[in-house]
Amino acid sequence: MITSFQNEKVKYYKRLMNSKKERDKDKLFIVEGRHLVEEAIRANVVLEIMVSDKKYIENKNFKYIEVTEGIMKKICDTKSPQGIIALCKQNTFDSFKSNQRLLLIDDIQDPGNLGTILRSCDAFNFDGIVMNERTVDVYNPKVVRATQGAIFRVPMMKKDLIDYIPILREKGIKVYGTSLDGESLSHIGSCENMAFILGNEGNGVSNTLLQMTDKNIYIEMNGESESLNVSIAASIIMYIFRK
Amino acid sequence: MITSFQNEKVKYYKRLMNSKKERDKDKLFIVEGRHLVEEAIRANVVLEIMVSDKKYIENKNFKYIEVTEGIMKKICDTKSPQGIIALCKQNTFDSFKSNQRLLLIDDIQDPGNLGTILRSCDAFNFDGIVMNERTVDVYNPKVVRATQGAIFRVPMMKKDLIDYIPILREKGIKVYGTSLDGESLSHIGSCENMAFILGNEGNGVSNTLLQMTDKNIYIEMNGESESLNVSIAASIIMYIFRK
Repeated sequence: MITSFQNEKVKYYKRLMNSKKERDKDKLFIVEGRHLVEEAIRANVVLEIMVSDKKYIENKNFKYIEVTEGIMKKICDTKSPQGIIALCKQNTFDSFKSNQRLLLIDDIQDPGNLGTILRSCDAFNFDGIVMNERTVDVYNPKVVRATQGAIFRVPMMKKDLIDYIPILREKGIKVYGTSLDGESLSHIGSCENMAFILGNEGNGVSNTLLQMTDKNIYIEMNGESESLNVSIAASIIMYIFRK
Repeated sequence: MITSFQNEKVKYYKRLMNSKKERDKDKLFIVEGRHLVEEAIRANVVLEIMVSDKKYIENKNFKYIEVTEGIMKKICDTKSPQGIIALCKQNTFDSFKSNQRLLLIDDIQDPGNLGTILRSCDAFNFDGIVMNERTVDVYNPKVVRATQGAIFRVPMMKKDLIDYIPILREKGIKVYGTSLDGESLSHIGSCENMAFILGNEGNGVSNTLLQMTDKNIYIEMNGESESLNVSIAASIIMYIFRK
């Protein structure tokens, strides 16, 4: 059992939890809690499990490390850790199996929003999500938690959307921006291949991108409210065009 | 200018920020930041404004108190306060002007979820939201922030839903629960008066309530995902049945 906060592995886990740079370097990340660890095992991405009590590893035939509760607490991002975390491989994609329904993410900053969007991508059978570099890291522990496991199922890529949108359109994929000046969502017909751009919480989709789309769409709402939460907007669009 | 952390007003503001009991006792709450303070002024509920610099009060003809930046930081719930907060009256309703579209909240715990639901209520013109006692306090600063100002526009009540659902049904309002065993959302026709129950993040709508409804509905999703975030589910329903 590891009992020292100075243990190299403990320090490494903590760095993976806190730092995107560290996660990117080794293409690894940490997931917390029983439910997510089980989802990670099912997705076949777990390298190692860490527990603060052997009982948490029951029935799991896995290489594991035992640590004290204090160390577990120090590593974890949550206030009341469930006593089990897993070191996981990041899943990288160069292309998607299908391009029927894609989501393009322009600069979303809130981890809860990005995680919730992934959860809805999974629920509504979207084929993939493409995030630009300024978007919050999808392996941030708060994002991972909000996905509720969808992070292991939704195909993901990081791309510069300015380069990527023309590639999608050349492939015959209709690209839709979201904008308060767009056409009503309910007037848009479903077509074979569709990609939707969702933008930053404060600024929406950047003007540069809005000018590169086939069409921009707008979710109908009453005159007084200025906007919807971005995870709500994304999910309504995904529900309407679900597969 | 108030410079002492021991000042009674400073302590009172801090208590209002932290404690539901204190907010309930005086029927007051605090809002933070320029945008929300402006919305509060427009809603005519502001009693007093507190700023950490006079420049924040420019053009506002309002009774205000100046405090140091340190005190502002101590009172505020956010890490980087914008230097302006307002003491506001809670808005209580005994009934709603219209009952065409209502939302009933059963035990939602996450402040971000409740706030986002209020924001969508406002966007999709719902007539009111009814929350049971176990739901997170709507005047919690994190809820208020997530509403983005909708808290000043959406009519709200607190009720025991076990007592209230039969009253709604007697008035001819169709009550719909949300449940994984329900009927597909897209099969439900719009009718004049509708109320939708949304439930707790972990457990959904309680079985007792699900047995008191006209019908229970389900948002179509793929087989593998277990559920949607509750603010997503609520908002999709509200979009579909928007006024």
